[in-house]
Amino acid sequence: MKYRDGSSIDWLHEEALERERDHLKKSQKSIRSLLSIWADSARVWLVVIATGIGIGVAGAWLDVLVKWLGDLREGRCQEGIFYNQVSCCSGLDPGEFCTDWQTWSEYFNIRKIFAQSLLQSSIYVTLAVLFAGTAAFLVNAYAPYAFHTGIPEIKAILGGYVFDAFLTPWTLLIKALGLALAVASGLSLGKEGPLVHVACCMAYMFSRFFKQFKHSEAQKRKLLAAAAAAGVSVAFGSPLGGVIFCLEELDTFALESDVMWRGFVASAIAAVSLQYIDPFGTSKLVLFQVTSGGDTWRAFELIPWLTLGVIGGVLGSFLIKLNVDIALYRRNSILNEYPILEVATVSAITAAIAYLVVFTRVQSSELVANLFQECDPARGDYHGLCNPTAMWENVFLLLISAAIKLVLTAWTFGMMVPAGIFLPTIAIGACIGRAVGILTQSIQTAYPKAWLFLSCPPDPTVRCVSPGFYSVIGASAMLGGVTRMTVSLVVILFELTGALSHVLPIMVGVMTAKWVGDALGKDGIYNVWIAMRQYPFIPPVDYNDRGKIAADGMKPFGMLVKIQEGQSTLGDIETLTKTHEFHGFPVVRGRDLVGYATRDKLLSFLSLHLSTQTKDKKCRFFSTRQKLSLTAENELDLTSCLENSILHLRKEVPQALVVRMFQKMNLHQILFTYRGQLDGMLTKADVVGLLNAHFPHTGALGNQGKVA
Amino acid sequence: MKYRDGSSIDWLHEEALERERDHLKKSQKSIRSLLSIWADSARVWLVVIATGIGIGVAGAWLDVLVKWLGDLREGRCQEGIFYNQVSCCSGLDPGEFCTDWQTWSEYFNIRKIFAQSLLQSSIYVTLAVLFAGTAAFLVNAYAPYAFHTGIPEIKAILGGYVFDAFLTPWTLLIKALGLALAVASGLSLGKEGPLVHVACCMAYMFSRFFKQFKHSEAQKRKLLAAAAAAGVSVAFGSPLGGVIFCLEELDTFALESDVMWRGFVASAIAAVSLQYIDPFGTSKLVLFQVTSGGDTWRAFELIPWLTLGVIGGVLGSFLIKLNVDIALYRRNSILNEYPILEVATVSAITAAIAYLVVFTRVQSSELVANLFQECDPARGDYHGLCNPTAMWENVFLLLISAAIKLVLTAWTFGMMVPAGIFLPTIAIGACIGRAVGILTQSIQTAYPKAWLFLSCPPDPTVRCVSPGFYSVIGASAMLGGVTRMTVSLVVILFELTGALSHVLPIMVGVMTAKWVGDALGKDGIYNVWIAMRQYPFIPPVDYNDRGKIAADGMKPFGMLVKIQEGQSTLGDIETLTKTHEFHGFPVVRGRDLVGYATRDKLLSFLSLHLSTQTKDKKCRFFSTRQKLSLTAENELDLTSCLENSILHLRKEVPQALVVRMFQKMNLHQILFTYRGQLDGMLTKADVVGLLNAHFPHTGALGNQGKVA
Repeated sequence: MKYRDGSSIDWLHEEALERERDHLKKSQKSIRSLLSIWADSARVWLVVIATGIGIGVAGAWLDVLVKWLGDLREGRCQEGIFYNQVSCCSGLDPGEFCTDWQTWSEYFNIRKIFAQSLLQSSIYVTLAVLFAGTAAFLVNAYAPYAFHTGIPEIKAILGGYVFDAFLTPWTLLIKALGLALAVASGLSLGKEGPLVHVACCMAYMFSRFFKQFKHSEAQKRKLLAAAAAAGVSVAFGSPLGGVIFCLEELDTFALESDVMWRGFVASAIAAVSLQYIDPFGTSKLVLFQVTSGGDTWRAFELIPWLTLGVIGGVLGSFLIKLNVDIALYRRNSILNEYPILEVATVSAITAAIAYLVVFTRVQSSELVANLFQECDPARGDYHGLCNPTAMWENVFLLLISAAIKLVLTAWTFGMMVPAGIFLPTIAIGACIGRAVGILTQSIQTAYPKAWLFLSCPPDPTVRCVSPGFYSVIGASAMLGGVTRMTVSLVVILFELTGALSHVLPIMVGVMTAKWVGDALGKDGIYNVWIAMRQYPFIPPVDYNDRGKIAADGMKPFGMLVKIQEGQSTLGDIETLTKTHEFHGFPVVRGRDLVGYATRDKLLSFLSLHLSTQTKDKKCRFFSTRQKLSLTAENELDLTSCLENSILHLRKEVPQALVVRMFQKMNLHQILFTYRGQLDGMLTKADVVGLLNAHFPHTGALGNQGKVA
Repeated sequence: MKYRDGSSIDWLHEEALERERDHLKKSQKSIRSLLSIWADSARVWLVVIATGIGIGVAGAWLDVLVKWLGDLREGRCQEGIFYNQVSCCSGLDPGEFCTDWQTWSEYFNIRKIFAQSLLQSSIYVTLAVLFAGTAAFLVNAYAPYAFHTGIPEIKAILGGYVFDAFLTPWTLLIKALGLALAVASGLSLGKEGPLVHVACCMAYMFSRFFKQFKHSEAQKRKLLAAAAAAGVSVAFGSPLGGVIFCLEELDTFALESDVMWRGFVASAIAAVSLQYIDPFGTSKLVLFQVTSGGDTWRAFELIPWLTLGVIGGVLGSFLIKLNVDIALYRRNSILNEYPILEVATVSAITAAIAYLVVFTRVQSSELVANLFQECDPARGDYHGLCNPTAMWENVFLLLISAAIKLVLTAWTFGMMVPAGIFLPTIAIGACIGRAVGILTQSIQTAYPKAWLFLSCPPDPTVRCVSPGFYSVIGASAMLGGVTRMTVSLVVILFELTGALSHVLPIMVGVMTAKWVGDALGKDGIYNVWIAMRQYPFIPPVDYNDRGKIAADGMKPFGMLVKIQEGQSTLGDIETLTKTHEFHGFPVVRGRDLVGYATRDKLLSFLSLHLSTQTKDKKCRFFSTRQKLSLTAENELDLTSCLENSILHLRKEVPQALVVRMFQKMNLHQILFTYRGQLDGMLTKADVVGLLNAHFPHTGALGNQGKVA
């Protein structure tokens, strides 16, 4: 292991190494080397395909487990406790009543209505607490990194952060199991982000079987990027969304076509596997099918849609703010010491509150699926949502549900359980969207002759406003406000709903929400968590340097830990590597820059050459053209420790350009020189600091990601 | 104008300038400067929105014009010649026969069947020649840059190539008009690529109204990128596809979120405008609606789909090869001197051949729309395609049509008319896909009990194989083989067909085609044309340097045109700028690098300071820290001519890394130094040369894009 956990890899160096290996193999024109090249490539594809299949199967298995656990909270199957409600009642003729499925009160044969509901609700709450508590216990005891969503860490890892403990098989197991328990407990969380983490753990596990990935941090990360695409693909049933999510949100490799390719393949295979197993017997990828109420929409609808966008932006920012405050409070209060108790309490409160309101009692996915549907007499009425006389009650209930879910989500996201933010956000947005939709519809039916509504069909029995579709827009806007994703969000949403004809309104909603949200606070929720945990991640944002130049941000010459060429002895260098954890040291002669020696190379040189005789020898570094010149008796040639791929700039360069270079080239450091003299140095950590300067809580949750 | 047409802009320099301007405005805390910042941003959005609306309207108008001209080849409306067939026959009760529309033989009252068909076919061919000839004449006489698709040039321009003549209002007009004529003439070409060009011309035209874009080549390009997205959006009715096309195919700005944003907005607005005008009264964005034959597909279908992928890859490569050969032949033969005659002849041949085969007689878009449809007794039979007894005849006809279209397309793409390659490629692929689909279906119905087909429903009246959908896959595969696009292609295709549930098979088709195609030849058709015209465009491909280092590719110190600090006089510098067209000159003292002076800055210095007295003064260049030191009597301070944003590397750096830097940072040059001494320099032109080394016909169509 060349890198410790917590350090950052040097991309240029890693890629140079990989190219060297590649070239070495290709230059030997033997059959064996040809086979070896072929085998390398085959192994990559093997891991990609295995990950795709693995995450597809895991996703399907998770769905089944969650469904079973969730149903268990309400009753059991007479045929056997391992059937869920749907499979228990399958095989019936239409119209036949399912008698095999018993609620708990039926099972215990309780007749009194009061006792019935008491028993039902207490089992409901107890099992919720039990599931959530177990999840928290598992996470706390066996795999602390399995908590939370995992997306911030994946972003940091793909950017070069070394965090192998985050990807162990043990984390994989606990995250998958804990996720199923946490989702089934009815906590306000989703499975989407954690599934991406699980996919990455899988890819990492498969990659450990082959030596070639152990040596290459860059190759490993390219595999992880493909795995992340597969994870999104399974989480949302959105193979294309997975690829574009990788491009937009994890855009470390945007330019490298082979990475996109692997993501494409992994994503497709994962979706095919999921569809093949078909956990719910629908043989559909589309999770929340929207019954499209006609492809047309009217100009006046832009008003409610823009409103939804604004609401999404404001509430999204509020959710982020609330979540940050709660996370800080949790960290600094007594809660920090009782994570399992916290989870149990919150799950009890969630279950108790949820049981009261009809829209929060069901699982979020079921709620969302129903909110996205239009009212259709043939389909039956979902909890009275389509009852036009109960309009105000419905709007009130929906808004209450949204408020409850918002607070619960802000609290839940960050507790000691695996928890995604996507689904709860969709649920909040869908409630609000539906409420706005119902309102708009009722205004339109009340004043059908108003000039605003003249574009509606004159026949009052034909629906003009489709509240179900407003739900979709509300969900899009809320997601836009919370995650600040754009294109990938639109793609995911319309793969999720199948509402292809409505891509324009979804775009409008997401755009407005992002604008409003950005005005209220620059970062999405993932970036906020990255900053709070201080991972060395450089977000792909435009950096406004306010006219500052590199010299204002760099560590100046005087503050740098340097190797003096021709003066430092091998002993000095040993001391240097022991006292400083830096990734490397500039080598200078006086003030002239000679090169940059990486700690890694220095250590391997020391392990070979350090002895009592060599300890006092002076270190020399030559350029290749001087290589033949001899070293004196008391000197040692350390030229091999110099790094070739080092960038030099002048210190008058604008900071914005320096940041761009770090963003685009994944640099680890830049040296600033003028006429061959070293002026200073800027590392990835410095750039991360510059970019996080506006955020007040940087590192508030522990400085986990020191860059060395 | 700072840059001549044909040169390449220096992105780092341009962006630095822009930041400076920005900063200057922001640092003045007056209301006026605040307003000015606001106005700058408002102007950008104004141009983006105007372009979106403009291209939406232009696209709709084009559709109407093409439809009218196309119908004119078959007959005329009694109500007036300016009605097309659909609007002429609108307002009829169902079942009523349209008498207002007359074929030409009806109009001229010809009764004999032989004379009828003779008249019809001769008018058909004559008008085709007339339309195509007019288009060619217009292009040839008024706007030679309006020929071809325009995508290669747009790619080059977005990459930094300066080519303002390509974007004039005159080109806009001729391209739009010529495109309508060319499409209506029935030549084997599409409107998609040219529409992107038209959109860019519009953005350029609108941007000329504001001073702020005149000064900034970078800002101008960011506008063009958004316009290109809008163009794709209108061309395919695919707003999301437009944005992703920009990301993948024109990925110069992938990281810059504001560019993506503007693309997003322009794209959405263009699609809304198009939908609002609704040229065909369908109020749909989806052009080739697929009647989804059930969401399920069977495992055995992977075999024909993979076959289609392979066919697409092979035929795509063949089409590219054929197109290149024809382009070279055209260039080097007598054809070069008679472009209009060539167009007229080819259009006559196209019309004559097309008239013979039923599938080629109609416009390609109509053919594709029908091939994409499943057979449905209620819809009627399209040219006997659904007749199961005529299976072999249909397969034969479809393959013949594909072959004819392939040859005609290879010839047409590159003639002196606006011509896109997308639609013809889709048509070729759709024909082949439908043929394969019909074959698969007939095998399945012939052997329903074979183990391969056991997954099909047992009821023989239920369709198991959907040949219409095979058409879509065939089209995807063919497009993948010709353009080598991936993700954006999939998005465009499924926005085009609405076949969301079939995104996985489309992905399989595109993937296979790209793999097979890449094995046969690395470049897509656009990149081949870029190379043939030698535009300074750096394709975002992985470059394999075979172990070479930067020193192997750079211009070494001895070959560089340099300024000797303290020795060169102002007169020398004047001679330098007159004899060399280079973008800039390294400044050295002996062998030590002082900096890099751009020609642009030198010229402005010369224009201010050159006189007979100063002509013999020596030029000095100082760093900022020495700025206060005085210049001697016979010396001049040219420090202001130095460029700050210059990258230095060591010449031992691998070439692959250097190429990556050029790709990701849009560099213009890199200097190679060691211990302050200049070793050499590498410019964009050198990198383009490296990347095109494998292509034998680089610059074969004229060295239009010399990088200075």
